[in-house]
Amino acid sequence: MKFIEKLESAQKKNNSLLCVGLDPSLERLPHVCRRQPQPFLAFNRSLIDATADLVCAYKPQIAHYAAAGAEAELQATIRYINESYPDIPVILDAKRGDIGSTAEKYAIEAFERYQADAVTVNPYLGGDSLAPFLKYREKGVVILCRTSNPGGGDLQSLEVEGEALYLRLARLAASSWNGNRNVLLVVGATWPAELARVRKVVGDMPLLVPGIGAQGGDLAAVLAAGLDRRGAGLLINSSRGIIYAGQEEAFGPGARQAALELRAEINRLRN
Amino acid sequence: MKFIEKLESAQKKNNSLLCVGLDPSLERLPHVCRRQPQPFLAFNRSLIDATADLVCAYKPQIAHYAAAGAEAELQATIRYINESYPDIPVILDAKRGDIGSTAEKYAIEAFERYQADAVTVNPYLGGDSLAPFLKYREKGVVILCRTSNPGGGDLQSLEVEGEALYLRLARLAASSWNGNRNVLLVVGATWPAELARVRKVVGDMPLLVPGIGAQGGDLAAVLAAGLDRRGAGLLINSSRGIIYAGQEEAFGPGARQAALELRAEINRLRN
Repeated sequence: MKFIEKLESAQKKNNSLLCVGLDPSLERLPHVCRRQPQPFLAFNRSLIDATADLVCAYKPQIAHYAAAGAEAELQATIRYINESYPDIPVILDAKRGDIGSTAEKYAIEAFERYQADAVTVNPYLGGDSLAPFLKYREKGVVILCRTSNPGGGDLQSLEVEGEALYLRLARLAASSWNGNRNVLLVVGATWPAELARVRKVVGDMPLLVPGIGAQGGDLAAVLAAGLDRRGAGLLINSSRGIIYAGQEEAFGPGARQAALELRAEINRLRN
Repeated sequence: MKFIEKLESAQKKNNSLLCVGLDPSLERLPHVCRRQPQPFLAFNRSLIDATADLVCAYKPQIAHYAAAGAEAELQATIRYINESYPDIPVILDAKRGDIGSTAEKYAIEAFERYQADAVTVNPYLGGDSLAPFLKYREKGVVILCRTSNPGGGDLQSLEVEGEALYLRLARLAASSWNGNRNVLLVVGATWPAELARVRKVVGDMPLLVPGIGAQGGDLAAVLAAGLDRRGAGLLINSSRGIIYAGQEEAFGPGARQAALELRAEINRLRN
């Protein structure tokens, strides 16, 4: 199945636009996980078991694993999702980008080594740097467009030929780069006006929206600006707001409760 | 010692602007290395021993290791350089970029886990995404500016307020982001006219120039365009042209010969 079909199928099955970011930091883990030989994996497995019927995707952020030398735990986390919850797609958040011959290696990293269903990529190096990812027709390629951070506009909002760079990027993504219908874009929840402009440019292309919760994005504004014509087309990501919602032994039920509430709030605002 | 001082010291000591890219692919390694338990490390150690008196820096590209699950060999390679040739700086070519809290993790990956002296980063997410790297005052932060690949101009050459985006980027790097004097830029050898424009904007800032050799960059044009007022300020990178120059058992001497010739050619053109 192609990525976007798998994603939309999970969104329907779980009635959810919620994507949960699996971004563990050792110092924030419950003690019950820290005592395990593979603390990130122990934490993630419990979080996944607690939320797999509530989400449309999981998004592990690779830097959290790389900083700790925990590649094996990332690999085992994705394998666990693929084997135990094969309907739920996994987006590897890696924001890779390099020239073609090296981008091929990064595509192997994401799609073959880690067996992710999709990967986030950085477009600064242009179309030929994205091609090695895009040629995996059954995989999703999630391109940074307008990021959620305060300095996101330093480059992305510069005006090029009458429009902002991020909008030019959205046009390129929708026209030149989407021949395999496997492109998605990242647009931060902190910029709902920009999100609305991107939506106009890209039709029903799915948009990954980080920045709810810890970063302060406004959920109602995001949905008003970002839903496609079918009232879908969004992945609303929450990481810290879900995974650290419960304390110590109750971290799994706490995460489930937070995911239930956020899914419900999203669905209330969709309808 | 700060990174740029270490780099300039190595350039003087070895009379060299040559940076060697350590980008091994298993299928291209000599059989004598492929038979080793750690083939990348065996290959790299021989290459390093053969060239350490001829280079100003080594630049391992992380995707080559990540695609093969060989993080341990990357780590051991850098440790080997740091212990055996402590005067030669190591630039981890990772092209990382993410929002601040995640960028902190990537900085830990590069500077603490791998103990690199510098790391390449992607500026698309703006200044606050670079800050977690820049705050390591003694480390180098090598920001993508105008990349060597054919599609590099898709975004980088778009005109913003009367100049190309890559030039705006160079201005931002030289003015706003270089408070710790630890910024370098990447400008591809395939664009000498652009390299000359960047040099005018950034003064004596060191520029990392990939794209000689396999990618077809013109060395004479690069040096004419890129040298600073002191006849220095460049790191000319070659990867495949050096590391695969020798055949089978002769790969070490072959790499040394290729490095000798390229260093001599660079020095001939500098003077």
